[in-house]
Amino acid sequence: MISHVNHIGIAVKDLEQAIENFRKIVGFTDVHTEIVSEQKVKIASFKIGEVLIELTAPTDESSTISKFIEKRGEGIHHIAFETDSIQNDLDSVKNLGINLINEYPVFGAHEMLVAFLHPKSTNGVLVEFCQPK
Amino acid sequence: MISHVNHIGIAVKDLEQAIENFRKIVGFTDVHTEIVSEQKVKIASFKIGEVLIELTAPTDESSTISKFIEKRGEGIHHIAFETDSIQNDLDSVKNLGINLINEYPVFGAHEMLVAFLHPKSTNGVLVEFCQPK
Repeated sequence: MISHVNHIGIAVKDLEQAIENFRKIVGFTDVHTEIVSEQKVKIASFKIGEVLIELTAPTDESSTISKFIEKRGEGIHHIAFETDSIQNDLDSVKNLGINLINEYPVFGAHEMLVAFLHPKSTNGVLVEFCQPK
Repeated sequence: MISHVNHIGIAVKDLEQAIENFRKIVGFTDVHTEIVSEQKVKIASFKIGEVLIELTAPTDESSTISKFIEKRGEGIHHIAFETDSIQNDLDSVKNLGINLINEYPVFGAHEMLVAFLHPKSTNGVLVEFCQPK
């Protein structure tokens, strides 16, 4: 069952520039940085209330984030909802007619299991479900 | 000072369709609906943890939401950060070189004072500051 928004993913070109920019805008002290090599991205995240803001920059031109930026420019990329039952929730939304990108969860940042729903089924919003391992 | 993400705004064409779709995806029981005539939109919002998801549909073709959908399709439109000192925060980010859409707050949904920062200064993210009246 979904409990809260775990994070909001933002696609950026230059991670260091974006960190300094968002520090001006919303203010934060602690930043977690991580390379997610499977997705060819590096991320920087900081918490505002219960939600992480996850700045994500490509490490390679073949990264999906790189393609997103090429097509749409920098900006909000996805919303991740945290659940304690990711496979059940994926099965449940699939049964209700929602198309999935990942039928089964894969490993993501922050040691989470993650899976994406298809934006064509979610009013253009790239929705992620995530569950702590 | 910014305390948390108040809401995530999602631009949709058909509010009733989007409500039923998001009910399938994240599940919720209570929906608040409201017409914001100044912005020519109707909204439906539901809470997931501490964050409101705010589905926003145009009521008129001249609405900025209508133009957003025409240009980019349905999808995530903005992130709103709640503050207890909106004018101070606007002045502060402006002094740090961030361009503002609204130099002074205006009235928005949920009886809030709201102001938008310019996406050119915020890595393509339409950022809203909001404060309860």
